[in-house]
Amino acid sequence: MSSTARPCSIAGALQIVGERWALLAVREIMFGNRRFDEIARNTGASRDILTARLRSLETAGILERRRYHDRPARYEYHLTEAGRDLAPVLHALRDWGDHWLPDPPPVTAHHTCGHPLDPLTVCRHCGAEATPETLRLTVNAPGWTLKGPE
Amino acid sequence: MSSTARPCSIAGALQIVGERWALLAVREIMFGNRRFDEIARNTGASRDILTARLRSLETAGILERRRYHDRPARYEYHLTEAGRDLAPVLHALRDWGDHWLPDPPPVTAHHTCGHPLDPLTVCRHCGAEATPETLRLTVNAPGWTLKGPE
Repeated sequence: MSSTARPCSIAGALQIVGERWALLAVREIMFGNRRFDEIARNTGASRDILTARLRSLETAGILERRRYHDRPARYEYHLTEAGRDLAPVLHALRDWGDHWLPDPPPVTAHHTCGHPLDPLTVCRHCGAEATPETLRLTVNAPGWTLKGPE
Repeated sequence: MSSTARPCSIAGALQIVGERWALLAVREIMFGNRRFDEIARNTGASRDILTARLRSLETAGILERRRYHDRPARYEYHLTEAGRDLAPVLHALRDWGDHWLPDPPPVTAHHTCGHPLDPLTVCRHCGAEATPETLRLTVNAPGWTLKGPE
């Protein structure tokens, strides 16, 4: 990213997971598919790309490899706390896809209350819905405003 | 994506926005920066990549171009409803980055209640928190389970 770009946590997060095969690998591991061949088959990623993505996710502290077999050495991939914290990103993408893609949702989620999950983002403090209209954004990066550099 | 891959709304969404320059362009337009030069400067995207991303986002129905000047023709980019619906994806990425990246948050959000936003995802029906532990996922895609193909 250009050094003149807006300082932004979205951009920082996307430098780590901003590539679809990386997030699809995280999805499969969240689903309990921890082995390379399972992740490759279920994501459809090429083995070369998947190998590179898994390595960079491990370097970034999203995944850790655990040996489950010696001679030959075989590894499973486990999410770190940072990796498990990506769940809301995947949920938001799933909600968008369920709503805007032409196909019916391939996976549906029911809440323990028994109803299909219709997620609502609220303020943990007051419990009211957090919409763009109810948020006041403050730009801490010197020289920047929401509209761009000052 | 391989035709044998898991049918998934996350994968479908990422086929449209699963590339960081696409989501960063959407971020800038949400921030009110609608013109190519502003978007290029604030994202740090190369002009060639940004041109391609904006075109594919327009084709996918995320953006629409509106002419604001004739001779020479100049355009602004506006989000469609589908584009505005990407806000939760960007919020989830920002929250993750704010928590896990080494730098302090470049942008902070306060809720109208006056407190810094600590977002909580709840079930719209019962109001209780929606965590992975409180969700029952049902796979509708024939032949697939969460663990992979049956």
